[in-house]
Amino acid sequence: MVYLTRKEHFNAAHQLHNYDWSDEKNIEVFGKCANKNFHGHNFDLFVTVKGKPNPETGFVMNAHILSKLMKQEVVARLDHKNLNLDVPEFTGLMLSTEIVVQQIWKWLQPHIASNACQLHCIKLYETENIYVEYFGE
Amino acid sequence: MVYLTRKEHFNAAHQLHNYDWSDEKNIEVFGKCANKNFHGHNFDLFVTVKGKPNPETGFVMNAHILSKLMKQEVVARLDHKNLNLDVPEFTGLMLSTEIVVQQIWKWLQPHIASNACQLHCIKLYETENIYVEYFGE
Amino acid sequence: MVYLTRKEHFNAAHQLHNYDWSDEKNIEVFGKCANKNFHGHNFDLFVTVKGKPNPETGFVMNAHILSKLMKQEVVARLDHKNLNLDVPEFTGLMLSTEIVVQQIWKWLQPHIASNACQLHCIKLYETENIYVEYFGE
Amino acid sequence: MVYLTRKEHFNAAHQLHNYDWSDEKNIEVFGKCANKNFHGHNFDLFVTVKGKPNPETGFVMNAHILSKLMKQEVVARLDHKNLNLDVPEFTGLMLSTEIVVQQIWKWLQPHIASNACQLHCIKLYETENIYVEYFGE
Amino acid sequence: MVYLTRKEHFNAAHQLHNYDWSDEKNIEVFGKCANKNFHGHNFDLFVTVKGKPNPETGFVMNAHILSKLMKQEVVARLDHKNLNLDVPEFTGLMLSTEIVVQQIWKWLQPHIASNACQLHCIKLYETENIYVEYFGE
Amino acid sequence: MVYLTRKEHFNAAHQLHNYDWSDEKNIEVFGKCANKNFHGHNFDLFVTVKGKPNPETGFVMNAHILSKLMKQEVVARLDHKNLNLDVPEFTGLMLSTEIVVQQIWKWLQPHIASNACQLHCIKLYETENIYVEYFGE
Repeated sequence: MVYLTRKEHFNAAHQLHNYDWSDEKNIEVFGKCANKNFHGHNFDLFVTVKGKPNPETGFVMNAHILSKLMKQEVVARLDHKNLNLDVPEFTGLMLSTEIVVQQIWKWLQPHIASNACQLHCIKLYETENIYVEYFGE
Repeated sequence: MVYLTRKEHFNAAHQLHNYDWSDEKNIEVFGKCANKNFHGHNFDLFVTVKGKPNPETGFVMNAHILSKLMKQEVVARLDHKNLNLDVPEFTGLMLSTEIVVQQIWKWLQPHIASNACQLHCIKLYETENIYVEYFGE
Repeated sequence: MVYLTRKEHFNAAHQLHNYDWSDEKNIEVFGKCANKNFHGHNFDLFVTVKGKPNPETGFVMNAHILSKLMKQEVVARLDHKNLNLDVPEFTGLMLSTEIVVQQIWKWLQPHIASNACQLHCIKLYETENIYVEYFGE
Repeated sequence: MVYLTRKEHFNAAHQLHNYDWSDEKNIEVFGKCANKNFHGHNFDLFVTVKGKPNPETGFVMNAHILSKLMKQEVVARLDHKNLNLDVPEFTGLMLSTEIVVQQIWKWLQPHIASNACQLHCIKLYETENIYVEYFGE
Repeated sequence: MVYLTRKEHFNAAHQLHNYDWSDEKNIEVFGKCANKNFHGHNFDLFVTVKGKPNPETGFVMNAHILSKLMKQEVVARLDHKNLNLDVPEFTGLMLSTEIVVQQIWKWLQPHIASNACQLHCIKLYETENIYVEYFGE
Repeated sequence: MVYLTRKEHFNAAHQLHNYDWSDEKNIEVFGKCANKNFHGHNFDLFVTVKGKPNPETGFVMNAHILSKLMKQEVVARLDHKNLNLDVPEFTGLMLSTEIVVQQIWKWLQPHIASNACQLHCIKLYETENIYVEYFGE
């Protein structure tokens, strides 16, 4: 079993806002992340797949195909977007990075499964000081 | 003459939009950066000052004072803000990074001048692949 | 189960010295790390917690609270300190990074447990080329 | 159980080429990585060992000894080499990074085992955007 | 005057070899960099242009156009290539990084000049520890 | 004229202390950097030389020779040392990074001058957020 990781990135705006709460409570819990006019980040996305290398190619998965899948399934949906306003799957949700990685898993998992290896981890950096990881369960 | 550089950062949303142009022209020139709902970045700010080290402290300028000035004059105004909507100095302007560095110079320059050294350069990273520098003229 | 990691840093002096050994043996085993006058590092600390995201906040744990805990329990004790001389818990100990991460676990674990998620990993970079990880057992 | 990781690096040329395939098929599958005249990378190698810290040294393993082993067993064989032409163990093989990490495990594992701790992971960055990990099985 | 810098990268094989010298002298001067079978690097290229921001766009130069020029004029010629064998402009030359940056200037300069701003600097990282800069004279 | 930069690093302890001042005044001006028991850093040193590439080697200066000079003249003096106690040139001085870069210039300049190129800049990172540059006057 060998693990292959590929990095892509996207730049997006978002806000942390619980629509069931008052503005005051949102600011109390989320602080400046609750700014109504949004703020934004350069998100770095690392996707790890695992499997047995194919004897003909030496690859767990062709890294160029993994890159294309990440661009098609994730970057195309999120890059230069407002995560709260522009992404149907996120409408009305609390948009913590924890929620975003679980959705990225849902977008990617069916495509990885069809490439004879398994999706292992979605890792998403919000800043260089904060990142979140999800392993599918 | 010795040069001292200090890094701070802020996370913000913005869009590139010329209010005198049609939406079509904005998209033609600025591409996905013209998204009406904004996108965002983790901005890294490097400020360089220059001077002769003070014989008592060995400092061109106390780096903690420089850090405080950057937080007070720049980070407090821009962090977790929407650059187009939340910053009075930017209202109605084309918000390229080139414009932002010139405004940061204006905010910081009077404070640096009063510390017996000179402001030398404002360097702002929009992403790890794009940065802009301004030397005051 | 989602994993959240937060980075903080501290700058400290230390030396590697076994007080039961002769100076010669200390130098033989630890080389220049045994310098009697100390050397130092910029330590980067990554703390990972894991749990189920809270449905109201979307958070495994509020990253600002995690940051505050790391500053209060670790950075306040170690930043700009001499690890051998200034930290009561380290008096008389061999101060390898392996020992430091286990003590950081002890400082942080009670506080994380009370936040409805679990401490998962303490990762400490001594330089960009050496780091140590501890998972609590 | 504590985990210690050490980084070393090497610069090497290679190509992706299955010798049982036509040139056309190699280009179809491997793209520009199949260039007959080779291309190259700055490879960053991270080796992780695990064990119980020795009470006399505080070390899972002396990081200087780990560094020397990595230089002697890996860097000396691969640095400033052509992986396809200069390394006997790689002759005639598909030289994906997946294959390289498994060979590095074979070179290092006997030496780590004799140091009272276990080899845990070989992690190899081909570029800053692609890396591969191997845990020995 | 504002300065804009854009980063792109390419991966390539090369060797340092003076064709007028014996193999022994090449190895004496260039060491392992003279390996006949080549070695390689991940090259990071930073191109800086300078000018007065255009009042309509706020840009010294559109960073996407700069990126496209760098890809078209430099990356397309050098990425996944053998610098000694695959690049007509380098045939028979000593291929130090110093020579490469001067050629990159020649490829880019005519295109930048036609965009109402000036080429200022070509900066090329061979590894994270060595880089070369050229300012056109 | 081409510019070549080489990076080396050293780890050292130091304190900021003006011996003509009371302890109270030292703490007032230098804060926690005045800790009597020292603190420390991983210092990253970048040395830039400039000159006309030699037609036989293509080099402004052989980067391996520059690396050796930096190790012999700077790293051997400062690595794993206490800058206040172990370095004769620093005895009794205010040990700001501004002072250190000027001394590094003095150590390196005679050796660079004898290699047919000129020393251009000493750049020293104290942390990833603070660095100082000196150009010789």
